[in-house]
Amino acid sequence: MADQVSLEWLVQSLRRLPGVGVRSAQRMAYHLLQHDRPGALQLARALEQAVASVRHCRMCHTFTEQEVCPTCLDPQRDHAQLCVVESPADQAALERTGAYRGLYFVLMGKISPLDGIGPQDIGLRQLLDRIDEAGGSTAGPVREVILATGFTAEGESTAHVISQALKARGIQVTRLARGVPVGSELEYVDLGTIAHALVDRR
Amino acid sequence: MADQVSLEWLVQSLRRLPGVGVRSAQRMAYHLLQHDRPGALQLARALEQAVASVRHCRMCHTFTEQEVCPTCLDPQRDHAQLCVVESPADQAALERTGAYRGLYFVLMGKISPLDGIGPQDIGLRQLLDRIDEAGGSTAGPVREVILATGFTAEGESTAHVISQALKARGIQVTRLARGVPVGSELEYVDLGTIAHALVDRR
Repeated sequence: MADQVSLEWLVQSLRRLPGVGVRSAQRMAYHLLQHDRPGALQLARALEQAVASVRHCRMCHTFTEQEVCPTCLDPQRDHAQLCVVESPADQAALERTGAYRGLYFVLMGKISPLDGIGPQDIGLRQLLDRIDEAGGSTAGPVREVILATGFTAEGESTAHVISQALKARGIQVTRLARGVPVGSELEYVDLGTIAHALVDRR
Repeated sequence: MADQVSLEWLVQSLRRLPGVGVRSAQRMAYHLLQHDRPGALQLARALEQAVASVRHCRMCHTFTEQEVCPTCLDPQRDHAQLCVVESPADQAALERTGAYRGLYFVLMGKISPLDGIGPQDIGLRQLLDRIDEAGGSTAGPVREVILATGFTAEGESTAHVISQALKARGIQVTRLARGVPVGSELEYVDLGTIAHALVDRR
């Protein structure tokens, strides 16, 4: 199999996907080449298109194809509330509860000293700028920041660091209530629990 | 998030990979867009290149970029032995043993009535053609076919069907030995395996 340069390269490239080891990558490559070549080409085009067009919302930092995402532009939402989440998946989970009508700030990560991810890597600077900017805007200032990072060790330290930085600015900082089971990632929690945790925030 | 057409399409496209559900696909998409855009573009190019250049060996049916793969062309190998395997991964496992110097035929699947996969879908016709063709070639005829399909229900029925078709042609058909795996304690081996090992003792 010394000539299988393209196949080997495909397997290596698939391994860059998170959670995909060499055997999974092989299985994926064989499946696509044997049973789903249109799917392989569709995936190639989707990757290129997403890399070309998906960027970060200037206000909330989530993935969007506009300069500012539709959620941040929505005049129906409460611009005085800002919910801080780790990822777009967490934001989507909160949206599905229907229990929150404020805005978001998506950290796109969490503080994780073991992985060398500190406060500057999760957009803390951008979050503070976002809040300062809102103070001078027509939409009015942010009055409450709801910390909805995960209830893991990293999520808690992330919430703690943000909380310290915001309290110095005189902004009300709340945290999702501990209705969320400790040790779980927000995106995997059932919607009722998330809704209760929103109501009971403290 | 109504504007995330590219992101949604990327998630849908990633779901065409085997074993990838909607949450894994989301995680993959977020990871690539947030942390590894070069990896995303590399994967796109690898997919396109593999689809364009990887095809099936005319002789053994495995993936190759040539008309006939290097293994089939190797004059050092014993052209009188043909080992039938389910997949290139199984072929690679046999190659790693260093214990086999014959040729291969890769079914690229196995008979699975529940999935609607019958004898015609796993290249039984091509296998018979391959053997008939070898009979008239300078490399000499195939004298022994070693059935190395898996020891699962599907692998066993696949072996049975091929075995029936080949015996009618007067070719010696053998099957990989069933027995106790090397390195295992007898008390942890399942009873069916022990029973087979007893019957096949040598």
